[in-house]
Amino acid sequence: MGQTIAEKVVSHHAGRQVMANEIAIVAIDGAMATDATAPLAIKAFREMGGVRLWDPSRVVLVIDHAAPAPNEQVSNLHALMRAFGREMGCVLYDVGEGICHQLMVEYDHVRPGQIILGADSHTPTYGALGAFAMGVGSTDLAAAWLTGKTWLKTPASIKIVLDGTLRTGVSAKDLVLFLVRQIGADGARYQAVEFTGSAIRSLSLASRMTLANMTAEMGALTAFVDLQGLDLPYRFDPIHPDPDAVYSVVYSFNVDHLLPQVAIPHAPSNVVPIDEVAGTPIQMAFIGSCTNSRLEDLRAAAAVLQGRKLAPGVRLIIAPASRQVFMMALQDGTIATLTESGATFITAGCGPCVGTHQGIPGNGENVITSTNRNFRGRMGNPHASIYLASPAVVAASALRGVITDPADVL
Amino acid sequence: MGQTIAEKVVSHHAGRQVMANEIAIVAIDGAMATDATAPLAIKAFREMGGVRLWDPSRVVLVIDHAAPAPNEQVSNLHALMRAFGREMGCVLYDVGEGICHQLMVEYDHVRPGQIILGADSHTPTYGALGAFAMGVGSTDLAAAWLTGKTWLKTPASIKIVLDGTLRTGVSAKDLVLFLVRQIGADGARYQAVEFTGSAIRSLSLASRMTLANMTAEMGALTAFVDLQGLDLPYRFDPIHPDPDAVYSVVYSFNVDHLLPQVAIPHAPSNVVPIDEVAGTPIQMAFIGSCTNSRLEDLRAAAAVLQGRKLAPGVRLIIAPASRQVFMMALQDGTIATLTESGATFITAGCGPCVGTHQGIPGNGENVITSTNRNFRGRMGNPHASIYLASPAVVAASALRGVITDPADVL
Repeated sequence: MGQTIAEKVVSHHAGRQVMANEIAIVAIDGAMATDATAPLAIKAFREMGGVRLWDPSRVVLVIDHAAPAPNEQVSNLHALMRAFGREMGCVLYDVGEGICHQLMVEYDHVRPGQIILGADSHTPTYGALGAFAMGVGSTDLAAAWLTGKTWLKTPASIKIVLDGTLRTGVSAKDLVLFLVRQIGADGARYQAVEFTGSAIRSLSLASRMTLANMTAEMGALTAFVDLQGLDLPYRFDPIHPDPDAVYSVVYSFNVDHLLPQVAIPHAPSNVVPIDEVAGTPIQMAFIGSCTNSRLEDLRAAAAVLQGRKLAPGVRLIIAPASRQVFMMALQDGTIATLTESGATFITAGCGPCVGTHQGIPGNGENVITSTNRNFRGRMGNPHASIYLASPAVVAASALRGVITDPADVL
Repeated sequence: MGQTIAEKVVSHHAGRQVMANEIAIVAIDGAMATDATAPLAIKAFREMGGVRLWDPSRVVLVIDHAAPAPNEQVSNLHALMRAFGREMGCVLYDVGEGICHQLMVEYDHVRPGQIILGADSHTPTYGALGAFAMGVGSTDLAAAWLTGKTWLKTPASIKIVLDGTLRTGVSAKDLVLFLVRQIGADGARYQAVEFTGSAIRSLSLASRMTLANMTAEMGALTAFVDLQGLDLPYRFDPIHPDPDAVYSVVYSFNVDHLLPQVAIPHAPSNVVPIDEVAGTPIQMAFIGSCTNSRLEDLRAAAAVLQGRKLAPGVRLIIAPASRQVFMMALQDGTIATLTESGATFITAGCGPCVGTHQGIPGNGENVITSTNRNFRGRMGNPHASIYLASPAVVAASALRGVITDPADVL
């Protein structure tokens, strides 16, 4: 009987043939936790009697959710992580290195066909590299630190076939917002989402990360983006689903005529084409998060803002995905272009996406942001309204002071 | 009877001859408030029945103490400032523009011989431009917004004569730390400090700002740095004290052999030469604040860190004084040099100097910082220890992981 990608990866890691809905114990290839989840995992690990990690080189801790520390309590949690990291000899990325999911990819902690656990809901991002990556709670993570294994129910799979070519100014973010709308917040619950089709081939790794990332907003457990056309610095054997693999559902879309999309308050699945919300006033704009803060995202914003100034009364805050992204954007002039336009940089990390600090909106304010969630209060203030969009849309809106299609200003 | 600079400036603004200890009503030339003080001043202004500012072009509001907003409450105070600014038509520098005192100088809100009020304790910084600049409370500021006047007791003056030449690697920060030690935390209480002597002549405007800035740590009301050798983009008539002016005390120092200085916990006047504390481990380093985050400060740090990496376990956080400083440091490669070394940039503004966010130390940590105050809890955690030093000392210490004289690494 044919297998999906998820079934193949789980089978390989379980050492036996496993099909959808079967429970399996699998060996894992890596485990990631952030300052939002590592402290609890450390506590659970100690309570389980943990004294050493199953493989310190495969355990990654990242200080990104509230970095630099906004208060004494958080700073002490960071110190706890550093002390644990030193004691265990595991990998730790400190304040300013960047966002966990970005660092996992940048520093080669993820490879095609691996199983990676992350104590963060956007772990499916690594599906851009063909890894089975899923979010877990702190306690499950602690158990995996100890044993190098985890249990899971093998997910059923959804296939999404994307054909055609995105128009200029329309990005992977617009595409995935459109898909979240089509499939719904719950439409991929506990499933693996396989992306394939000719539209994938021309997408950069960064864009594929955006696509895989927001499957979390469809309820997916994990995601796999077809590796065709991906240029990686090592040899790999892509895992293909069998021709007779079984899917819960197969979607096919042609992306040729897709317009920029915006998720309006207060759910990521509340998505409309931009013309339905264009003209809505905004006071704050943010480019950041594991969804959209890589070099191509900053460049897309710079292309809109080059030689222009933000609308009066609008603040545009930018958190690069990582130190490396910041360095590259320094070298090619992107940081200078954005700064000249009036944008303000904060430390590479999660920043206001998670509402911890560094740009919490005020009451009654509208925020346009390149992030992934617009639930009420997500950015730290339940009295603000959050609109999700691509970096180009965020930049065009910051330029005009109202939600704006980049095509209208380019 | 001869007059000091303070007596001359007050007399000019009072419209009559005034001497030390006399109370005078003076016309003011400008009034500045930040997000730490403007909200209260706005409330007081409304309670006084204020409907318009005496001169909106001379009222400056700056969002710098907690920018971008670390939480909903602060974000709402920022929104209150923006609404007041729009209603009154005054000047407002929003999130990311920089530190109030830097912006007052950069944007030409201060000129020699003026009287400027600032609702911030480091307002004497403008003494670098020969202005009588003093900190006031929010209520006094509100009254000045209404009337364009304030009352003050004319200060007595202290003269500090500085001769000689600072050694390479020794900066205005080392000099003023040394002076705070000599004069004491209370030694200049409610006085005007006049700096003169041949050592001043070679100091940049930025260095003179550092010098004037920390007179607040001697208890001074205001400061005047001799304008000799200062290159300004406009004509001005420097105000000189009369030869027979009366001073509370005159200090004379030769700076030829001054070593780098460090203020140890928990007071800015607890100053020792660096060799007495060299080797003390540090976990966090910060370059920022109205005292030391200008271009020359970032360059001094970059000169130390060029081509090198921070010590493991040390984080170096940098908040440039302003967007303009950040832009200049982008253009000359300073930002790239510092980022490559492992430093992390936060938004131009006050940042962790005031303990509001963006880099609060953990319990038991030692922090070396280019800021101005090391009182217990100043940086947001009463269980941390703060050491004040020059940017070069901060950089050298971040490089080695222990307090280090830059001369040992350059």
